[in-house]
Amino acid sequence: MGWFTKDIETMDDLFVHTLQDIFYAEHQIKQALPDMVDKATSPALKQGFQTHLQETEGHIARLRQVFKQHGVEERGVTCPAIDGILQEAKEIAGEVADKRVLDAALIAAAQAVEHYEITRYGTLVAWARQLGREDCAALLQQNLDEETATDAKLSELATGGINRKAA
Amino acid sequence: MGWFTKDIETMDDLFVHTLQDIFYAEHQIKQALPDMVDKATSPALKQGFQTHLQETEGHIARLRQVFKQHGVEERGVTCPAIDGILQEAKEIAGEVADKRVLDAALIAAAQAVEHYEITRYGTLVAWARQLGREDCAALLQQNLDEETATDAKLSELATGGINRKAA
Repeated sequence: MGWFTKDIETMDDLFVHTLQDIFYAEHQIKQALPDMVDKATSPALKQGFQTHLQETEGHIARLRQVFKQHGVEERGVTCPAIDGILQEAKEIAGEVADKRVLDAALIAAAQAVEHYEITRYGTLVAWARQLGREDCAALLQQNLDEETATDAKLSELATGGINRKAA
Repeated sequence: MGWFTKDIETMDDLFVHTLQDIFYAEHQIKQALPDMVDKATSPALKQGFQTHLQETEGHIARLRQVFKQHGVEERGVTCPAIDGILQEAKEIAGEVADKRVLDAALIAAAQAVEHYEITRYGTLVAWARQLGREDCAALLQQNLDEETATDAKLSELATGGINRKAA
């Protein structure tokens, strides 16, 4: 979120602003994922990142629909949170020498991204319902469910072998 | 995380680096919370932030113990993720005019912080176990449980009245 004036007056303004925040975040994630696919060594992890890239494109499409349904212009606002999370992911990937340790680090970085999305979509679903926008809430819930499933899958990959190989 | 050389060679290095990351993050959160206490209008939310400030001090004390048990020097490393999340929290708080809408925005910001901590502690617990450090895992699990409980309490406050008052 990146305004410095008191531009948010109503709950509806706050909802739209947070939509713009996650819209920007999803685009940044879409840009970051191909590099994570390249860096991953475990075929299952590589495939997991590849699948999530396709899902991310679906999330952006659903957000476009939410903007449309809510009757507001589709646009993003700079989101320092996702910028920081992705910067940290990039830095850690550059710091790890061993390929197997790198896989463990990549999973941790990806889970930080997932948790950011989970918290934002959780908030947006609650706010959409409060505003009487069940139609928007339903779409946002689908994104939330996919992010939650991705996070669980990453935990499974980590504890199912990648952490052991790294240790 | 903030190094630019390939300094992380083993899973143990990665564990210690991520400990330093969350140690820095907890200190930044401790500094940010008094301002959130001040800005909150709902007495329950104000009290919630106050309680979390005390818990944060407890988390820092547990992290000190983990450093000690693991036999490494206690220190933090700059964590762009938490810096971005807190910058976003500060910006949004400055953008909202209405006090009731501000409470809803503060909860969303605090939940983004909680989710960052949840993901990092979740990772650290798994890595500590993989490294055979059940003693460290037990302490980190306590921090994780408290962060998870705080996140649930914030959701409860949001859907239990604060979002309704804001809308």
